[in-house]
Amino acid sequence: MSTSRYVVPFAEGNRDQRALLGGKGANLAEMTRIGLPVPEGFIVTTDACRVYLEKEDLPDGLMDEVREHLDELEKAAGKSLGDANDPLLLSVRSGAPFSMPGMMDTVLNLGLHDGAIPGLAKVSGDERFAWDAYRRLLQLYGKIVMGVDGERFDHRLEEIVEASGGKDEGDLTAADFKQAVTDFLTIIEEDTGKPFPQDPAEQLEGAIGAVFRSWNGRRARDYRRMEGIPDDLGTAVNIQRMVFGNVGTESGTGVAFTRDPATGENVPYGDWLEGAQGEDVVAGIRQTQTLEDLAERFPQAYEQLRETMDILEAHERDMCDIEFTIEHSKLYMLQTRVGKRSATAALRMATEMVGEGLIDTDEAVRRVKPDQLEQLLHPQFSPDADYQALTTGLPASPGAATGTVVFTADEAHERAEAGEQVLLVRNETSPDDLHGMIAAQGILTARGGLVSHAAVVARGMGTPAVVGASELKIDMKAKSFTVNGTTVNEGDVISISGNSGEVVAGEVEVITPKPEGPFNQLLEWADGFRRLAIRTNADTGPDTAKAVELGAEGIGLCRTEHMFFGDRLPVVRRMLLADSDEQRTSALAELLEVQREDFVEILRELDGLPTTVRLLDPPLHEFLPDLTELVAKEARGELTAEDEQLLAAARSLEEENPMLGTRGCRLGIIQPDIYRMQVRALLEAAVKVEKEGLTPIVEIMIPLIVDASELELIAGWIRETAEETLERAGANVAFLIGTMIETPRAALTSGPIAESAEFFSYGTNDLTQMTYGFSRDDVEATIMPTYLEKGLFEENPFATIDVDGVGRLMQLSAEEGRATNPDLKLGICGEHGGDPKTIALAHQIGLSYVSCSPFRVPVARLAAAHAALGHAGPGSTS
Amino acid sequence: MSTSRYVVPFAEGNRDQRALLGGKGANLAEMTRIGLPVPEGFIVTTDACRVYLEKEDLPDGLMDEVREHLDELEKAAGKSLGDANDPLLLSVRSGAPFSMPGMMDTVLNLGLHDGAIPGLAKVSGDERFAWDAYRRLLQLYGKIVMGVDGERFDHRLEEIVEASGGKDEGDLTAADFKQAVTDFLTIIEEDTGKPFPQDPAEQLEGAIGAVFRSWNGRRARDYRRMEGIPDDLGTAVNIQRMVFGNVGTESGTGVAFTRDPATGENVPYGDWLEGAQGEDVVAGIRQTQTLEDLAERFPQAYEQLRETMDILEAHERDMCDIEFTIEHSKLYMLQTRVGKRSATAALRMATEMVGEGLIDTDEAVRRVKPDQLEQLLHPQFSPDADYQALTTGLPASPGAATGTVVFTADEAHERAEAGEQVLLVRNETSPDDLHGMIAAQGILTARGGLVSHAAVVARGMGTPAVVGASELKIDMKAKSFTVNGTTVNEGDVISISGNSGEVVAGEVEVITPKPEGPFNQLLEWADGFRRLAIRTNADTGPDTAKAVELGAEGIGLCRTEHMFFGDRLPVVRRMLLADSDEQRTSALAELLEVQREDFVEILRELDGLPTTVRLLDPPLHEFLPDLTELVAKEARGELTAEDEQLLAAARSLEEENPMLGTRGCRLGIIQPDIYRMQVRALLEAAVKVEKEGLTPIVEIMIPLIVDASELELIAGWIRETAEETLERAGANVAFLIGTMIETPRAALTSGPIAESAEFFSYGTNDLTQMTYGFSRDDVEATIMPTYLEKGLFEENPFATIDVDGVGRLMQLSAEEGRATNPDLKLGICGEHGGDPKTIALAHQIGLSYVSCSPFRVPVARLAAAHAALGHAGPGSTS
Repeated sequence: MSTSRYVVPFAEGNRDQRALLGGKGANLAEMTRIGLPVPEGFIVTTDACRVYLEKEDLPDGLMDEVREHLDELEKAAGKSLGDANDPLLLSVRSGAPFSMPGMMDTVLNLGLHDGAIPGLAKVSGDERFAWDAYRRLLQLYGKIVMGVDGERFDHRLEEIVEASGGKDEGDLTAADFKQAVTDFLTIIEEDTGKPFPQDPAEQLEGAIGAVFRSWNGRRARDYRRMEGIPDDLGTAVNIQRMVFGNVGTESGTGVAFTRDPATGENVPYGDWLEGAQGEDVVAGIRQTQTLEDLAERFPQAYEQLRETMDILEAHERDMCDIEFTIEHSKLYMLQTRVGKRSATAALRMATEMVGEGLIDTDEAVRRVKPDQLEQLLHPQFSPDADYQALTTGLPASPGAATGTVVFTADEAHERAEAGEQVLLVRNETSPDDLHGMIAAQGILTARGGLVSHAAVVARGMGTPAVVGASELKIDMKAKSFTVNGTTVNEGDVISISGNSGEVVAGEVEVITPKPEGPFNQLLEWADGFRRLAIRTNADTGPDTAKAVELGAEGIGLCRTEHMFFGDRLPVVRRMLLADSDEQRTSALAELLEVQREDFVEILRELDGLPTTVRLLDPPLHEFLPDLTELVAKEARGELTAEDEQLLAAARSLEEENPMLGTRGCRLGIIQPDIYRMQVRALLEAAVKVEKEGLTPIVEIMIPLIVDASELELIAGWIRETAEETLERAGANVAFLIGTMIETPRAALTSGPIAESAEFFSYGTNDLTQMTYGFSRDDVEATIMPTYLEKGLFEENPFATIDVDGVGRLMQLSAEEGRATNPDLKLGICGEHGGDPKTIALAHQIGLSYVSCSPFRVPVARLAAAHAALGHAGPGSTS
Repeated sequence: MSTSRYVVPFAEGNRDQRALLGGKGANLAEMTRIGLPVPEGFIVTTDACRVYLEKEDLPDGLMDEVREHLDELEKAAGKSLGDANDPLLLSVRSGAPFSMPGMMDTVLNLGLHDGAIPGLAKVSGDERFAWDAYRRLLQLYGKIVMGVDGERFDHRLEEIVEASGGKDEGDLTAADFKQAVTDFLTIIEEDTGKPFPQDPAEQLEGAIGAVFRSWNGRRARDYRRMEGIPDDLGTAVNIQRMVFGNVGTESGTGVAFTRDPATGENVPYGDWLEGAQGEDVVAGIRQTQTLEDLAERFPQAYEQLRETMDILEAHERDMCDIEFTIEHSKLYMLQTRVGKRSATAALRMATEMVGEGLIDTDEAVRRVKPDQLEQLLHPQFSPDADYQALTTGLPASPGAATGTVVFTADEAHERAEAGEQVLLVRNETSPDDLHGMIAAQGILTARGGLVSHAAVVARGMGTPAVVGASELKIDMKAKSFTVNGTTVNEGDVISISGNSGEVVAGEVEVITPKPEGPFNQLLEWADGFRRLAIRTNADTGPDTAKAVELGAEGIGLCRTEHMFFGDRLPVVRRMLLADSDEQRTSALAELLEVQREDFVEILRELDGLPTTVRLLDPPLHEFLPDLTELVAKEARGELTAEDEQLLAAARSLEEENPMLGTRGCRLGIIQPDIYRMQVRALLEAAVKVEKEGLTPIVEIMIPLIVDASELELIAGWIRETAEETLERAGANVAFLIGTMIETPRAALTSGPIAESAEFFSYGTNDLTQMTYGFSRDDVEATIMPTYLEKGLFEENPFATIDVDGVGRLMQLSAEEGRATNPDLKLGICGEHGGDPKTIALAHQIGLSYVSCSPFRVPVARLAAAHAALGHAGPGSTS
């Protein structure tokens, strides 16, 4: 074993050392360990990176250790770094503990210098290769280590291609590359005031530092925030002998997956290029070839590749993604990792691997991310659709959308009002664009990351969005954008996929996937592991039916206020404007009739499953027209007699902060008639459904309490009304009475509250609003994106529960509530109920259930299984 | 010692048994114990009452115990209950552990029946007395025990007085009273269907139950809520031999105080009536006589009274309030207690008794209630004013007010807009009256208690109010009220005193008292005991000066937003409407100038005392006109060019719930320029003041944080700006950086927050708003009165801190904050800072200071001393 502090050779590491060696390094070591053909190399560990980030300099003695391991490497390779006759070339690649594809930097061909080109040309027998290798080093090193604007190199190279009369780099000659080398050396010196370092040791030291620095690059930080990867892990650096797929004729390079990463089918899938270096395959400049082509072209190497893939998949018990190079007919493995896959593929692989005996069902459940399931339920581009993406941005909010392009929020709003389906395209959005974002079918931005304003707001609204599509050049004056040569004008139709980030001209056929075999199979397995019950938030019969179909085990939140809108609104207004008790009573009686029918519809869908009905929650002014509109009408002298009444009512019910005003049980306490009516409607519905031979299970929930006294008072009224109702009906229906815990004070006084409650349901939306003092409507489009971008918050607390504040209140409440009443049922019914991290918290606190929107039910089922399998947190399935 | 469970004779109790015997009973026992002349009697304990309230029936065996002690009493008195020849008569009086004057019931002359009148006439030698005694029993017993409407008796008696041609009861003859007895017996039987019980044992049992029941009477419950007396204490019943001040000629009855309860002067003060029973003195029907008259009329009894008073005051070491009766020249003590006193008197007595060596300074400090001090600082009727009160209601909100009477909120609003000072008179108020209540100088209601809507809202607004002035008969049609024969019309001027509850026709001279000798003396003593520092909330030089004069030891909250209004508003709007950075910067520079001068003014007043300056807190739309008004203007086509800009800005800054929106540090994070400007203005001011030879002590406070990250970010900006500013000025001023803790989340994450904070200041207003989910503006006039009246809340959490919710968060925050940073300074700067119960909590949590409005500073100093003396909680000084 080496005594190094900061360097580990491939031959001494293994795949369990991801934190220390990074994912790439650990896998290179593992492959070396099991005898796969990996070029020699060693790893500078993440420990060294953390020291570097702390003191902004390499750890003392690091370069000595590197030199020591380099000596070993030179011995094994039979070449020396810097040797003018036969130079050893190195690749210097980043490799973090969690995969961060393309987010960090790499330097290839390190070790070349002016004096070594003739030697390299000679040993490789390829002068063009030698100059090409050198210009690649200058290009990468100049940009990454020395900070030169990469466009300067690209631009110069384009000029050389043009001058050569060829169509791309493949057509350039040794002389052309030599010219490029001369020009690049000049660019570097001009731009940085320093020459390119001719000393390979200096190059290596610079490259290691640059890879470390790239950990804190803007894109890397954004990516980590999105993926929930901690900022203090650091990256390792993999230093490895270069092999070349672009030297001589029997060479090539490629990437491959042991199974199809798009469909999940159990056939290997890959792309390769003859006579090319790795980056050429990824860059997509040349048309790649298939594995079938490889089998034909280099049958021996192909055979070796297939064997290696089989060994790897059996070893990892998962689909692997590999990078390989064939140098002079010999196969080298440059990288492997568990492969990324589409949601469909993840499901298919997981279930098929159980069938193949490769993994157990718990492992299959672990292998699919809850959010992947959600993607499968949103509308998406049809797999049969034939389209060519104009460009690909970041998939910021799932779903597919098609619409006519507009460039301003006002235009979006106007056209949408006129019935048009629009797609809002902006460089970036701001709170001023909100009305346009609401009006749009989808949102596309040229700038911004996954926590940009557009991304956060779109996810909040459930609108598909692609952000940071940086190839888009928007011309606001011309009202058009160009992308890769195509110009799209205002009014043209485009489509976007918030699942893949693709942007497509014209309409793309969209399908809303139906859950099928592997989907249901996996969830069935998940149900066997989870301890949390999954309920749904639903207010109508059809929503309830949908949720039950997706596996909901009851309703956790039936909001009754929705039953006051639509064609009931005139009756509700009559109740609010009533001059006399009779008018009021008659309006309430009408509402009773319709509410009862609403409840009957819902209870029929839930035969034998519990239904938690929340009594009326919102402030009454929500049932009136907007005050500002009425005032404007008044100023114009346009008020009708009814308007005048409405204006008076709106004035008297107006509140500065309705969220903190007369709503929830406060309303119930001031106007007990409404609650009595609702209880009567619900129990009459239950009696009716029971007479139909079904089993209604009714739970009555009181919103927004702050003190046990409110619950006691209202529970008394409920019992009175229930007794009257059931006596009149000559029936007996059991029911529970419980309460939302959605104010901090209710959480803090849960002990006494539990004396009168049979269940608690955490209303995490309001609890978050009040714990933070955030009005979701107001802050989510204004300060939240700023807070996320500045890193003040790691997550949007309206999406993922805030463990330190809101979660702490819930934990305390659950403990003290159960201390008073050990039979207390506990659940979550805020929108957080469908969020996997929140579900993990709910599991940990020991809640009985979570409740979420119907389409999140499968996600919640899977997340609850993950929680039970002790599997949660960032990046753990990647 | 008796072996009774529920009965204690006077001779066996003492003054330390208030909880068991009630205050009255304990004092009667104590007087008996020290040999004062108390008629024989015994006490049915509060234990019995609690059993009665629980099972709605007297405890088993209670009446046997009563019979046993009655035997003793009969033996001592030499008379028997019910004896037709010489009947023993009993008084049956309530007596709760805390004084609840007039709130509960009493039955006198119990034991009389038809057959005993001749005997009583004979032994008393006074037939008129005998019939009068009987009709009094019938009247009280009928009303209290049997539930007859008391007005029926009063009305019948008035008829008899009228028929007799006399002017009041004093002119009635034996025959008249005999007639009254006949009529009253008929009324009772008609009204209740049952005859008056002729059996004295039955009378006694009925009276005991009635007294117990009166514990839960409406008025008693309201009173307890106001005074913070628990509902489950129960009352005792005092059963005592009657003595008569209305029999024969050498008799009388009176009430007296050992010192003057109005001024505090050390001379006895009293009222008495010759030939009268106790209730006649209190009823105020006949003109009472002074103690000087008593000395002249019955010199011997007077001498005995003075001696008894001296014994009592020496024994109690406090001013005593006594009831006495002289029967056939012999003095009897019927009751004593520590006397109620005016605020002025409380101060004078406390300080003088220290001078007299009667009590120590700590006791003197304990003897004055903090709220009494506040009364002394509010405007009040001049003691020299010559007025006759029309009536007296409940003093609901302190201060004196004069204005023209109006009967509707609209009228109040209109007249006030026109510059008139109005006084709003209503039967009761509702949220619809709010605009009128705001407009009025004072509020007077005929109905409602101290937690009625009018009372709660008036206290919240600091408007003087008298409520429940039940003698007022309001005629809304005629727009007038009558009270005790006087009619007052709309537009007439009246005055009210919210200290005394008095209502006076015309204007009464009002003075705003100046603190004087005893005031300052007492506070000086208080300062010696307290551990909490007292700071003030002040935003201007004059307010600061006033607070320092009243003893403030610094500013705990200097709100800078006030510095943005008034003549600065146009500049602020220029900043908000700026089209360019230059416009914005220039407006900010102007604001910098004026803010610096504001700070200079304040810092000059606080030489050597700390000044906590809160950076801008409110949402920006507060600096714009109301959106609704602008929309109405727009609808009328009246917008100027500037209005149009303002409208656009108001629309873009509009928030659904501004309380939970972009305010506090959120604003600072989005618009750092404003905070930088404020920090610069403050530090430049400090430099200037320091150059004047003064010592500025500056603390910069960041509002509304929810997470340590916000504080870190802003603290960084502050340090940067401070460094620049001080460097430019070539000066060095030390300053602290701290934060408000005013969101539940900040409280819950105080540990990490304390890493970047040098002090915490609890913003209890916002913390209460968010912990309850109550917008103070919205709920205080709507649901709060309902909640208090229904007993859902014991106190308004905006007046007295909620210990279970908000207090718990504070406690947790203080503990975790100090665990991180043991040097952390902790204070309260919400309006609760001046509330005695909150101060007790602050003391208990171990805060460093509380901060309150300038006029509450003396109250807070005293309350902090009480807290340190372990003296807080309801009723403890009464």
